[in-house]
Amino acid sequence: MKAVRIYGEKDIRVEDVSIPEPKDDQVQIKVKYCGICGSDLHAYLEGWGLPTVPYPLTGKTVPITLGHEFSGEIVKVGKDVDDLQVGDHVAVEPLLACGKCENCRAGNYNFCNKAVSTDGAGNFLGFSEDGGMAEFANVQGVFAHKMPEDMDFELGALAEPTAVVYEAIKKSHLREGQNVAVMGAGPIGLLEAVLAKIAGANHVYIVDVSKVRLDKAKELGIENALDPSKDDVEAIIKKDLPNGVDITFECAGVQATFDSALKVTKRTGIIQVVALYAKPVTMNMTDDLIMQGKDVITTLCYNNSFPNVLGIIDNHKDLFKKVVTKKVSLDDALEEGIKALSTDKSQVKIMIDPSL
Amino acid sequence: MKAVRIYGEKDIRVEDVSIPEPKDDQVQIKVKYCGICGSDLHAYLEGWGLPTVPYPLTGKTVPITLGHEFSGEIVKVGKDVDDLQVGDHVAVEPLLACGKCENCRAGNYNFCNKAVSTDGAGNFLGFSEDGGMAEFANVQGVFAHKMPEDMDFELGALAEPTAVVYEAIKKSHLREGQNVAVMGAGPIGLLEAVLAKIAGANHVYIVDVSKVRLDKAKELGIENALDPSKDDVEAIIKKDLPNGVDITFECAGVQATFDSALKVTKRTGIIQVVALYAKPVTMNMTDDLIMQGKDVITTLCYNNSFPNVLGIIDNHKDLFKKVVTKKVSLDDALEEGIKALSTDKSQVKIMIDPSL
Ligand SMILES: NC(=O)c1ccc[n+]([C@@H]2O[C@H](COP(=O)([O-])OP(=O)(O)OC[C@H]3O[C@@H](n4cnc5c(N)ncnc54)[C@H](O)[C@@H]3O)[C@@H](O)[C@H]2O)c1
Ligand SMILES: NC(=O)c1ccc[n+]([C@@H]2O[C@H](COP(=O)([O-])OP(=O)(O)OC[C@H]3O[C@@H](n4cnc5c(N)ncnc54)[C@H](O)[C@@H]3O)[C@@H](O)[C@H]2O)c1
Ligand SMILES: [Zn+2]
Ligand SMILES: [Zn+2]
Repeated sequence: MKAVRIYGEKDIRVEDVSIPEPKDDQVQIKVKYCGICGSDLHAYLEGWGLPTVPYPLTGKTVPITLGHEFSGEIVKVGKDVDDLQVGDHVAVEPLLACGKCENCRAGNYNFCNKAVSTDGAGNFLGFSEDGGMAEFANVQGVFAHKMPEDMDFELGALAEPTAVVYEAIKKSHLREGQNVAVMGAGPIGLLEAVLAKIAGANHVYIVDVSKVRLDKAKELGIENALDPSKDDVEAIIKKDLPNGVDITFECAGVQATFDSALKVTKRTGIIQVVALYAKPVTMNMTDDLIMQGKDVITTLCYNNSFPNVLGIIDNHKDLFKKVVTKKVSLDDALEEGIKALSTDKSQVKIMIDPSL
Repeated sequence: MKAVRIYGEKDIRVEDVSIPEPKDDQVQIKVKYCGICGSDLHAYLEGWGLPTVPYPLTGKTVPITLGHEFSGEIVKVGKDVDDLQVGDHVAVEPLLACGKCENCRAGNYNFCNKAVSTDGAGNFLGFSEDGGMAEFANVQGVFAHKMPEDMDFELGALAEPTAVVYEAIKKSHLREGQNVAVMGAGPIGLLEAVLAKIAGANHVYIVDVSKVRLDKAKELGIENALDPSKDDVEAIIKKDLPNGVDITFECAGVQATFDSALKVTKRTGIIQVVALYAKPVTMNMTDDLIMQGKDVITTLCYNNSFPNVLGIIDNHKDLFKKVVTKKVSLDDALEEGIKALSTDKSQVKIMIDPSL
């Protein structure tokens, strides 16, 4: 079958590979759509997250088939999987986890203690195990989630990035009626703002320096789209909310947006950091955090949320369809997909369709 | 009456002042003991927290009577105070709060939105209103908490610093059976470790570079007292707990202890910052926090906890008595009290006894 393979920094090849039989606890999926994520770009540009030494849970090193945002139809079922059948439509939760360590048993399998590599390889399919940028993929049964009846496969492939922002909201304990700011209107920031609205947030502000992305935010129903190079973000938010927002979701990942997050969040509020920072961040612990009663909380991936997330997407089909901005073939994955995501800010979610 | 008055940086005078009648919502207290706190030292050395412009809720500027850790006997009762009587023994919660703003109504009166000054003056008695280093003090009735029957007044004066560490534990959601590290074995760190034990923590480690303070920790029942200049703190903790502790209470306030806190805390664990940092702190958001599922939460003062705290102290009388290391008169407050706290590491809590 055809697969998008990464060998290392700046080395992606579309190749013909064989697909092994699924293991007893796995299902085999005919991939319908696989989204492209910023981290695929980082893997390509900087070799980020790739296993250079055998990954603990899988024994794999590069080359690896990329892709961790995918949906498909089950074509084979391992003998120990008893709740899935050939023909089922599933969205894949692409985590690697042992299921047995302290964190796994506590439900925090996104922090599986066995899924830690000395070289910082990612604990996902598409990084430390073959992923979804291919015609077929093998996936653990527990991580293949049945999609709601008649849901489009492209919506199923949105479950993964939506689960990221859902986890951030879950950890922040956002409640309906509270107010929210989102720093960064990339795919993650946009979905975060959309989900905050769905979660019943009252005012939702989104902040980005890219006009195209702010326009996209408006198209997705986020009216308060602010550009810090033109707008006085703090003043605008505090005009509506003198004390500031309850929670700021930091989805940009630079010192400037971290500082801005502190400014627009009310005393006793929360800075929920979703973005991965390329550089260390500096903060004035006493004046900006302690004296303000503000906490900095983090989030990574998701756990135990795919069924809820699939339900949300199904319930807001038309909205989520607007997130998909382009579809490309496996052959075009690098040039038209991964690279386009970095150069064309009008792209939100580019989907690979292996049937093209 | 005699009072310890602060006029500004390095200017403390013991003076004779008059005491006004208590307002309708206040009681007047004959002060029995008033503890000396590190922040009194900062007020003296750097002018920290002192009102140089009229403080919003009180209209006060320096000079101010110092002291925010005090207990005493009620000698007068304002006409609107209906649950306290002359002769009652009380511990004072020394906060200034409007009782009406959003944060006050939410129970977070330690973040009262009206108790914010442009010059960073502290929202406590002893900073922006006359405090307890005097023979008498006026205190709002709602902030005068009846002490358990027959409790010594010096234990009552420990309620305030104990409420600080209690709040930190409350916000961290520490549960019995979890494991804890405490960075810094100053008065706050020592009390934090003691309270973590009382809260049922399993392993409690305390870390300091001062031998005297580590010895004090052992005297208070904290056996695992570690010196990072001699001990490999991370290795020792991870020998007992391969994944690390659940919560680290950062009570030292320097980059080195923040970094150490990150190292000894398990994935998905919490860094609870109690210390006020003199300098900005730098952190590697991605590798040290997000990828580890660690959160940085803060704490300031306390709310709604004095009755519980007084109960705890009463229940562990002999232990808390060991925290009081010296008693001095009002006249000796500066030389034997405030200054001694900074030079003599064997001191934990020095109490002023106005009757001396
Ligand atoms: N925590 C997790 O589990 C998780 C999962 C997926 C992605 N992420 C991270 O989330 C972040 C966002 O992902 P994405 O795909 O949306 O990335 P992206 O790069 O497409 O979006 C970031 C946005 O921030 C904006 N921005 C940059 N500097 C700014 C500034 N000074 N002011 C305002 N806006 C600014 C950019 O214009 C861009 O639109 C990335 O760091 C990514 O690695 C985290
Ligand atoms: N958040 C709040 O509400 C609140 C309330 C009261 C006090 N505080 C703060 O809590 C902190 C502790 O107060 P305290 O009175 O115990 O102060 P302290 O100065 O007496 O104690 C700090 C301790 O940290 C130790 N230390 C310094 N550097 C170290 C290092 N590199 N490694 C290990 N130990 C180190 C010192 O030896 C000292 O014993 C202060 O910053 C204080 O301002 C906060
Ligand atoms: Zn595990
Ligand atoms: Zn208030």
